[in-house]
Amino acid sequence: MATHHLASWSHNLRYSSLPPEVIHAAIKTFYNWTGCAIGGSNHPAKAIAYKTLSPFFGKPTYSLLGRHHDADGGAGGYKSVDAQHAALINGIASHVHHYDDTHLDTIIHPAGPVASALLAVAEWKGSETKISGKDFLLALVVGVEAECKLGLAVWPEHYDVGWHITSTTGSIGAAVAVSKLLGLSIEQTSHAIGIAATQVIGLREMFGAHTKSFHPGSAAQSGLMATVMAQGGYTSSLQALEAKRGWVNVVGATKSTDELQADLDKWLGIGATIGEQDGVGLPDGATGRWEILRNSFKPYPCGIVIHPIIDGCSQLHHDLKARGLSGHDVASVHARVHPLVLELTGKPKPRDGLEGKFSFYHGAAIGLLYGKGTPSQYEDSVVQDPEVIAIRDRIQGTADRSLNADETRIVVMINDGQVLEKHVVHAVGSLEVPMDDKALEMKFKDQCMGVLGEKVDTASQECWGIEIVEDVRSIVKSLCT
Amino acid sequence: MATHHLASWSHNLRYSSLPPEVIHAAIKTFYNWTGCAIGGSNHPAKAIAYKTLSPFFGKPTYSLLGRHHDADGGAGGYKSVDAQHAALINGIASHVHHYDDTHLDTIIHPAGPVASALLAVAEWKGSETKISGKDFLLALVVGVEAECKLGLAVWPEHYDVGWHITSTTGSIGAAVAVSKLLGLSIEQTSHAIGIAATQVIGLREMFGAHTKSFHPGSAAQSGLMATVMAQGGYTSSLQALEAKRGWVNVVGATKSTDELQADLDKWLGIGATIGEQDGVGLPDGATGRWEILRNSFKPYPCGIVIHPIIDGCSQLHHDLKARGLSGHDVASVHARVHPLVLELTGKPKPRDGLEGKFSFYHGAAIGLLYGKGTPSQYEDSVVQDPEVIAIRDRIQGTADRSLNADETRIVVMINDGQVLEKHVVHAVGSLEVPMDDKALEMKFKDQCMGVLGEKVDTASQECWGIEIVEDVRSIVKSLCT
Repeated sequence: MATHHLASWSHNLRYSSLPPEVIHAAIKTFYNWTGCAIGGSNHPAKAIAYKTLSPFFGKPTYSLLGRHHDADGGAGGYKSVDAQHAALINGIASHVHHYDDTHLDTIIHPAGPVASALLAVAEWKGSETKISGKDFLLALVVGVEAECKLGLAVWPEHYDVGWHITSTTGSIGAAVAVSKLLGLSIEQTSHAIGIAATQVIGLREMFGAHTKSFHPGSAAQSGLMATVMAQGGYTSSLQALEAKRGWVNVVGATKSTDELQADLDKWLGIGATIGEQDGVGLPDGATGRWEILRNSFKPYPCGIVIHPIIDGCSQLHHDLKARGLSGHDVASVHARVHPLVLELTGKPKPRDGLEGKFSFYHGAAIGLLYGKGTPSQYEDSVVQDPEVIAIRDRIQGTADRSLNADETRIVVMINDGQVLEKHVVHAVGSLEVPMDDKALEMKFKDQCMGVLGEKVDTASQECWGIEIVEDVRSIVKSLCT
Repeated sequence: MATHHLASWSHNLRYSSLPPEVIHAAIKTFYNWTGCAIGGSNHPAKAIAYKTLSPFFGKPTYSLLGRHHDADGGAGGYKSVDAQHAALINGIASHVHHYDDTHLDTIIHPAGPVASALLAVAEWKGSETKISGKDFLLALVVGVEAECKLGLAVWPEHYDVGWHITSTTGSIGAAVAVSKLLGLSIEQTSHAIGIAATQVIGLREMFGAHTKSFHPGSAAQSGLMATVMAQGGYTSSLQALEAKRGWVNVVGATKSTDELQADLDKWLGIGATIGEQDGVGLPDGATGRWEILRNSFKPYPCGIVIHPIIDGCSQLHHDLKARGLSGHDVASVHARVHPLVLELTGKPKPRDGLEGKFSFYHGAAIGLLYGKGTPSQYEDSVVQDPEVIAIRDRIQGTADRSLNADETRIVVMINDGQVLEKHVVHAVGSLEVPMDDKALEMKFKDQCMGVLGEKVDTASQECWGIEIVEDVRSIVKSLCT
């Protein structure tokens, strides 16, 4: 029943049933995704995908976000491709800096697969029937709910065995979202779910290579493809998720069939329904919740366990500044952190930007010196800067099991003998201390400035205003160079 | 090491190292695949895929085999699409009648993913550099070996849990084959294997729907895409198959990591090498065998367990004819078969062609009446023909555990009181009684006649002659209308 229930829930949900906070969460999710896709638009992984797949591009109906950089050093600039390849390539760009959104309960990055597919469809189909901002946001909500709830049904065994849960659930989320946007029937949506479910994309073994960013892009493409095929009558199973040899049982790893069935019913079955036609919003019951409200945004483009130290050191940067001092005046830093932090990111001497993303020490250094950790602080030149290295070498970390993973206690000794202390209880970007709209806007502009230049303010305004636009295509223009 | 070893084995293998019987098996594999792709070219599943995906088609560089039929009843005719969609759509067509080749040890249908990708590439790239028949056959061999050996490493748990092993191994086989055809380096081939491995396509839950035929097509497309991306520098893992969170461990189901590693080494590691540069052919050792020599061809377009009864009844048809009698003179038929036959195909009153493919009784009836079981005998009109039904209703089956799955003992009582008996020890199409070239040619012509008309003889000759052509594109022309 889970497949049918997901399809009928999605089909029946109205915009008027979305609580205001859900709409705002959807806008933030879209806004953050757009910034990441633009910010990642000049990454080599995207350029290679564009170049190698260009012999297959169909009629250009969709603008690639940001600015294209040719893989072979050519002129680049504005590029338009067919909707399928757009979904793939924007999906790659949006994930390539590891800066996109995170549903912390499942560590799914929900926007990549769903928004990449939706925006491509909105521009492709917009010439026939305008797709409004409200239509777009509603589809984004159903897609995010679908992938995160599916993820919860198989978490954590599915991730533990080695699946990249963002894309394995993402193709299905994208199919549900595109089905909603294109107005598929409940039965057609079920077939779309099936065709998407049979394409299971993403092994964790690919982490560290370009192929990691391929995952959300490929999920977006697969979900889009599944939906247009289902709309045209291509048949699948109507029990693709719950059947004995269907999705959850095949990819559910060591979880038993009974457990999987119970979790699937809990998260996607009857009773798990939220926001149905009556518009009453959240019902009672533990599962009657909107996952999109639990979607978080990364303030820093690096492993999430490094966030507390960057947060704390950035605050210390401002404390030092208030005293007329800077990071250069620091004699030593001692930080106590959860053991996992040093286990995963205890790299004392990172050699380049990518290694810097896995270095607790580099995170502390840029926090103290710059008061922030944006993609600029992860460029090779910064990681190799002697001034950064000098501070990095004065930092010590100690594992402390009494701390949470998003917590840190920092003691800074200044050259003049003063001592400063900082206790970060929850790092910014956690559910407890989310990035507010202003912080998200700074992140957007910081990512997009180098790509869009003076258009960045317009782009930001247009994205914030998506709810009121009559034709989503009008936004896309401001997001490209 | 398995990923590297597969890549280097494939990279280093020369045509001169292929034993003559391997070359002949490759030709038969290509020949049979071509017939199936042409024979399936007018199936609705293919027409829907073509119509729904046409908005995304790129520059038409590849001819779709056979004859295109429009999903909406339009003119159809000759169609050309980009190589990626060609791989997908020809792959769908080649599998849609369940008539393609079978590697019996793993029940992989090897040609679909590999040949669909290769022929698309041969025509796409042929305008730059001609691809000869020998190049094509060599690439076909490495692709088939790759997928079947990978399949052996995860068999049977991988299939049992619900993966459609044809396509899950097929994307990797296609990537290895296309890498060989395009001359990728060992490292590039490893990256191609990784990008293909991260796209795991095919749940068995889709059996019975159009999506089953999507699987080999999608595997062909994914493998092709992976290879062109890897050739252009898109990076993946170099241990995609054997890593802790790599392909075999993630999709190996209940098989333990140690078992999987041992099986991977057995089938794909050092020591499993065949036909390396010295051209000596098969080395010693149980695993030093060519899987393509174990590829079999279906004489009948239906479940393989029905083959013995069709085989036996077809022989009885000729025995009756020799006596001046026909199926109409049969009073009763009693067949003893392996219990699985009745369990899987014990449908006494099939309603249409598709149900007929799962009916032991229909199989016996068409054998007696027509002396053959070709796609024509599985048309709705035949399954619903009162004359066929009259004979079908005189057939009884009894499960007999002492028989093999490809064996049957048949007793026929004729109206005049005579009794005929037939013992099929191994059904035709098994490894023991393979379809010979002549039978394969009859199958090809039977499938293709309705599509190609008078061109069918030329098409057959061209396909048999692939080894000596200098440009594979020259063959393709004869395979389209």
